[in-house]
Amino acid sequence: MKKFINNVDTVLNESLQGFALAHSDIIEFSAEPRYVKRKTLKGPGKVALVSGGGSGHEPLHTGFVGTGMLDAACPGQIFTSPSPDQMLAAAQAVQQGGGVLFIVKNYAGDVMNFEIASEMLEFTSASVLVSDDVSLPKTHSTGRRGVAGTLMVEKMVGAAAENGVCLSECKTLGDRINLATASMGVALTSCTVPALGKPTFAIGDNEMEMGVGIHGERGRETVPLKSAADIVEQVATIIDEDLHPKKGQEMLLHVNGFGGTPLMELYLVYGLAAAFWQKKGLRIIRSLVGNFTTSIDMAGTSITLTLLDEELTRLWDAPVHTAALRWGG
Amino acid sequence: MKKFINNVDTVLNESLQGFALAHSDIIEFSAEPRYVKRKTLKGPGKVALVSGGGSGHEPLHTGFVGTGMLDAACPGQIFTSPSPDQMLAAAQAVQQGGGVLFIVKNYAGDVMNFEIASEMLEFTSASVLVSDDVSLPKTHSTGRRGVAGTLMVEKMVGAAAENGVCLSECKTLGDRINLATASMGVALTSCTVPALGKPTFAIGDNEMEMGVGIHGERGRETVPLKSAADIVEQVATIIDEDLHPKKGQEMLLHVNGFGGTPLMELYLVYGLAAAFWQKKGLRIIRSLVGNFTTSIDMAGTSITLTLLDEELTRLWDAPVHTAALRWGG
Repeated sequence: MKKFINNVDTVLNESLQGFALAHSDIIEFSAEPRYVKRKTLKGPGKVALVSGGGSGHEPLHTGFVGTGMLDAACPGQIFTSPSPDQMLAAAQAVQQGGGVLFIVKNYAGDVMNFEIASEMLEFTSASVLVSDDVSLPKTHSTGRRGVAGTLMVEKMVGAAAENGVCLSECKTLGDRINLATASMGVALTSCTVPALGKPTFAIGDNEMEMGVGIHGERGRETVPLKSAADIVEQVATIIDEDLHPKKGQEMLLHVNGFGGTPLMELYLVYGLAAAFWQKKGLRIIRSLVGNFTTSIDMAGTSITLTLLDEELTRLWDAPVHTAALRWGG
Repeated sequence: MKKFINNVDTVLNESLQGFALAHSDIIEFSAEPRYVKRKTLKGPGKVALVSGGGSGHEPLHTGFVGTGMLDAACPGQIFTSPSPDQMLAAAQAVQQGGGVLFIVKNYAGDVMNFEIASEMLEFTSASVLVSDDVSLPKTHSTGRRGVAGTLMVEKMVGAAAENGVCLSECKTLGDRINLATASMGVALTSCTVPALGKPTFAIGDNEMEMGVGIHGERGRETVPLKSAADIVEQVATIIDEDLHPKKGQEMLLHVNGFGGTPLMELYLVYGLAAAFWQKKGLRIIRSLVGNFTTSIDMAGTSITLTLLDEELTRLWDAPVHTAALRWGG
């Protein structure tokens, strides 16, 4: 394992301390219990947005804490759910009288712990469960996984909450964005969890993993390495058949990197995906390309499509000021 | 080689086409000769800022084209200088009557081709040569290499040009920023150039390369893998001895990733580097952490320190709207 670390037991806190120092203008870090909160809360009546999950997906979620997005994020150990006491402490630290909305990626541990936190909370809360990974069927026993589409939920609901939208409407909106969003990932290599010290899964030199999860979970199938055009055609077709957008539909296209794939390849994938949907008569009116929902150092990419309408486009465009996303103010 | 590509001969143009599509609100791409230009030029009298160099360092330089930074960037083939006709076409496309300032990283091919372009140009031009890599001695035969500190020159001179500063003052400013900036990189793995199909250099499982260049060039020495704390101590000491900042000095600290190293590690490195200089009584007042000057998929990081004063801080803070850097407007 070749990594810039001192000790596998302290890597997470050391990294978060560096993060807190680099972004001390917008966030604050609590080490015990562990959470990152927005430095300046908007104040009276705002719905507080709290997310979290296992670490190793940076900048998700800590990089999305700030004006117009999350009020707090709870980083668990790498690929491990945060605990209810982290969520509780974070929620208490950022609640502003408008209730708390938890944004939860659909993994058993996260779901359970956020539920426990909700029950222990002394003020109103609701949850949005993100399940955008269409590499698994809708009928999968534990439901679909939450992957890169989580960013869209956090950004758009974040804008709504910033504008004073109430808890129940934020919850409805989050569910709506989740349903309008579909993602699928492909891995060329495994990732290496520091504490494990070796690749999470084995993959041949001429193989790739279609439908991989953001922890390197096996997806649909291990297949021989293909051209970027073939990969994008296959992934985009699966997403398209799930969302079945109509001709003329406006959309947001997000090409996400898993950490080890350079921008040059991500933009190449973006170009192919954009061409796929343009040929079908869709209108790509917003784009995001880069490493946002990563899997440590995995070489791979995911494609996320969100069907837009006027409201969602406005929420996407609204000002945001976080470590990883910043525009409009 | 595991990459998202169709053909090693077309990867660059395919990627740039995707880039142009994703950022059509701010840039335009010319395929022949190859350059990326700002979509909306500021207009009469503005100094036009043109940079360029071999591809494989994305988002440098194409990701820095836009309001408040570059007017155009000329991407060469991967790790290969762009040609004078690219530079000439780009300069002609973006000149606005205030002359052209070329920002050139110090590599023989880039220097020669930008010089040829300058001579062929029919209007006034000047060049800033970036040479921030302190892993080589000041007396090195071809001078020091230009690496991640190029971003600081492009951002700050970009802000000055946007504010109407004239060509000779932009040139003086760029030289001053270059002298106030020092960088050094460390590689844990090689990078893989698509056309080559295998790692550029060999490095043992328990080795690292101190003072690596952004093309994977050997730097100071190949040494056994060390802890992040030891690496940062060594790199920061070399930078510090070169710039010898005074106690109380305000500075910008940039931790750059080479493409294959995850944010978690970059922030950990940032925290260690910040602590190093804080202990010496310096004041880190601005920060930038992320993959900005990459070496395709190399696992590695570089640390860049820029000594700030009121003028440079103001130029750093000025609004910028590019694909890779965006704030303040």
